[in-house]
Amino acid sequence: MNAYEELVKISRKIHNLEHMSSIVGWDQQTMMPQGSNDARSNALAEFDVLLHQISTDAKAAELIKQASTQELTKIEKASLLEIKREYELHTILPDELVKAKSLAGSKCEYSWREQRENNDWKGFLVNFEEVVNLSRQEASIRAEHTGLSPYDSLLNIYEPDMNSKLLDDIFFDVKSWLPSLISEIVDKQKNESILKPTGTFSIKQQKDLGLSVMKKLGFDFDKGRLDVSAHPFCGGVCEDVRITTRYDEKDFIQSLMGIVHETGHALYEQNLPSSLSFLPVGKARSMGIHESQSLLFEMQMGRGRAFLESIRQNVVDAFGSSDVFCIDNLVKIYSEVKPGLIRVDADEVTYPAHVILRYEIEKDLMNGVIEAKDIPDMWNEKMKLYLGLDTRGNFKDGPMQDVHWTDGSFGYFPSYTLGAMYAAQQFKTVETLYPNVNENISKGDYFQVVSWLKENIWQKASLLSTTDLIKEATGESLNPKYLKQHLEQRYL
Amino acid sequence: MNAYEELVKISRKIHNLEHMSSIVGWDQQTMMPQGSNDARSNALAEFDVLLHQISTDAKAAELIKQASTQELTKIEKASLLEIKREYELHTILPDELVKAKSLAGSKCEYSWREQRENNDWKGFLVNFEEVVNLSRQEASIRAEHTGLSPYDSLLNIYEPDMNSKLLDDIFFDVKSWLPSLISEIVDKQKNESILKPTGTFSIKQQKDLGLSVMKKLGFDFDKGRLDVSAHPFCGGVCEDVRITTRYDEKDFIQSLMGIVHETGHALYEQNLPSSLSFLPVGKARSMGIHESQSLLFEMQMGRGRAFLESIRQNVVDAFGSSDVFCIDNLVKIYSEVKPGLIRVDADEVTYPAHVILRYEIEKDLMNGVIEAKDIPDMWNEKMKLYLGLDTRGNFKDGPMQDVHWTDGSFGYFPSYTLGAMYAAQQFKTVETLYPNVNENISKGDYFQVVSWLKENIWQKASLLSTTDLIKEATGESLNPKYLKQHLEQRYL
Repeated sequence: MNAYEELVKISRKIHNLEHMSSIVGWDQQTMMPQGSNDARSNALAEFDVLLHQISTDAKAAELIKQASTQELTKIEKASLLEIKREYELHTILPDELVKAKSLAGSKCEYSWREQRENNDWKGFLVNFEEVVNLSRQEASIRAEHTGLSPYDSLLNIYEPDMNSKLLDDIFFDVKSWLPSLISEIVDKQKNESILKPTGTFSIKQQKDLGLSVMKKLGFDFDKGRLDVSAHPFCGGVCEDVRITTRYDEKDFIQSLMGIVHETGHALYEQNLPSSLSFLPVGKARSMGIHESQSLLFEMQMGRGRAFLESIRQNVVDAFGSSDVFCIDNLVKIYSEVKPGLIRVDADEVTYPAHVILRYEIEKDLMNGVIEAKDIPDMWNEKMKLYLGLDTRGNFKDGPMQDVHWTDGSFGYFPSYTLGAMYAAQQFKTVETLYPNVNENISKGDYFQVVSWLKENIWQKASLLSTTDLIKEATGESLNPKYLKQHLEQRYL
Repeated sequence: MNAYEELVKISRKIHNLEHMSSIVGWDQQTMMPQGSNDARSNALAEFDVLLHQISTDAKAAELIKQASTQELTKIEKASLLEIKREYELHTILPDELVKAKSLAGSKCEYSWREQRENNDWKGFLVNFEEVVNLSRQEASIRAEHTGLSPYDSLLNIYEPDMNSKLLDDIFFDVKSWLPSLISEIVDKQKNESILKPTGTFSIKQQKDLGLSVMKKLGFDFDKGRLDVSAHPFCGGVCEDVRITTRYDEKDFIQSLMGIVHETGHALYEQNLPSSLSFLPVGKARSMGIHESQSLLFEMQMGRGRAFLESIRQNVVDAFGSSDVFCIDNLVKIYSEVKPGLIRVDADEVTYPAHVILRYEIEKDLMNGVIEAKDIPDMWNEKMKLYLGLDTRGNFKDGPMQDVHWTDGSFGYFPSYTLGAMYAAQQFKTVETLYPNVNENISKGDYFQVVSWLKENIWQKASLLSTTDLIKEATGESLNPKYLKQHLEQRYL
């Protein structure tokens, strides 16, 4: 067995072990009774330590060195690159820092649940400063190793190939047109009347509706499931993709489109090249590309008139006919724009404002330009500027609104808007290639979209860099103009 | 950290890792879509190898030696004994034999599924002979280490403290009265008329009924669940017990009592001493004791008139009132005796005949008295003798009827009937201690039964040997006369 083959063997082992924690993690969110949480957390923590030991085995460093002198095929070369990248991401941090960060994150997250309820920024800050402190240590170690800025070295965990210089340019552009676009749309929608669903929508019927839409979109139920969790996600493994939603008996609108969103993630996972599934090069390219798949399904296609036409009958079959379900009204429901404080509730027009705000704060925080205590002021200022909202004193719906920062996952936020941009660019390419695509979509024939994605994104896994993946698929590098065009076309 | 403390640390690690495979194994039987089976099997196999490596680490042998010279408390001494037992069970076999047996078992089991359909004993024999061969190698290695006979060394995996000398005596006694008792009961029941449930019993209602009965019995839903699987089982971990059943829309009778059976297993697991849960000494005592809990609930209590009275209203609430659900008829339904070919479908009277037959065959097979090819003749002869049934040529419902032997789990069968005997002896003790116990049971008050079991069996975990456990709980060693008395009282 040569060095590359040995690395493949190690990758297969890691893949198999990650299968275990993915399924157990899914179970924790969907099936596990609450009283078992301590035992489960202990089991997962023990397993993580073991997996970390295996992933950082010093033998791999030597093998990587040897393999890079071997004669390798093109795919093997790409594979080795990803093995190396994964290995370095895992090994570069000293074990004590990983442990300290994990502990500080858990502590901060645990207290945050109550502190958020009580709008207790001061209490939160005590734990959060330690998280920031340890994340800065991480960033500094990664920066030294990669030669990047501290923030960029974190960004690269989620978005290899991306940097804040480029993001600054992109977001500078977005900020130049987004606030006025939002005002214009809000003004326009002021005079529209929307019929909202009323009554009770049984969970069983909502689930059946969700399943029927997943089936139409090509979700493979022989290799995946739909379940319920407090926070919807796409989990499991590529051979067994577990997506979740949550149901509200009073309103099926959010849950249905949530299922379309997770189905986008799921189709990516289910259509990765199975021959490479156990290798890092066979996994999804990046968080931004993953999000582009869910947003292409939910936003680009899902909230469009053509798609809503294609599933209108499913909705009627589930809940009976009603004026609410006429196509014009459904389109209105699914394209309502409303600036709000909470990112996860935001529509696709205001969403980028939330992300830019978070990006600008976390970048300055990691690069040492600001301190944790400065966040609320910066938050208030940017909220006013980008969305026209006053958030002074409201920490609960401000910097404490979600769990992302509590465990020190700085560098993740840009992925959401990068995903939206990649999605717009991809969908535009499909529309240009197949001028009749929306006509087909409206008939429930998504073949052109799905087959294009399969060939150009899903089957490419991590064989190309993000830049090359997008270039080969769409003919150009990331170009934010497609998101702008899309928003203007749909909402103005 | 002294040697014993180090061993505790290793035990905790193994406990946590077993948590992972228990939940993933449960998922495979209950939730996993079929198309994921290959990936899942690979993941579990990889994990098993890893767990085996950790469980057999040579360092533990040294620590065990050191710890046995330490000053230990009584509980620590018992704990060390179980740690040593577990360690030796795992380490005594060479890795190659473990792997070869696992492969041969998988191959035999996989082919068996089709061979059974085709009644293909000849085809089955080819693979089965290899399983027997490898199991004999295992038995011989274990025998050499323990000084026991080959069969006894396997029996001891499941029933520490038990031996075939004692089993021969016990079963010799049973064989002296069982066949005539069966005839007598069959004769008596010939003239009874039983109303069988007809109609459709929705799965949702059956599930709700099952849940209501589990709740009455004290199942802790904050640390466990009820789900569906092809073959009902009690799985998960003691902090999160997962029991399953299967539903037949035409008949709720089997499923309901199946749930009572699995609840017996579950209550044992849920009531093991939580302070010892991560140590071998904190786990269930043996397969026979485990089975005694499920059989105490299903057979001793569950099919008795008092218990059926206590759940009659739940049945009526679920399915409406009917003559079928009058107490006399329910008692008849749940005490019907019918000699049959299939062990898993057998009633409690004929069940021991199936087990004795299997025990006598597998004992001779492992001790080299017979060969695999001799099984059908021996089977026919004993089936005729014990149950009066002709099984010649019917391999499918004979030695190929279940999966137990295909993977070389020889030594397990006695546990079923030992469980029935332990259950009868335990229940008799409770009845003697609390003369009004059945009156209370009929009112749905199971406190006397449950609290006695909790104190005398569940909380004792593996702190005592099986012999001492039963002696302390019931005042005497295993005595098969209680099973006989129970059967005569209920059925004659």
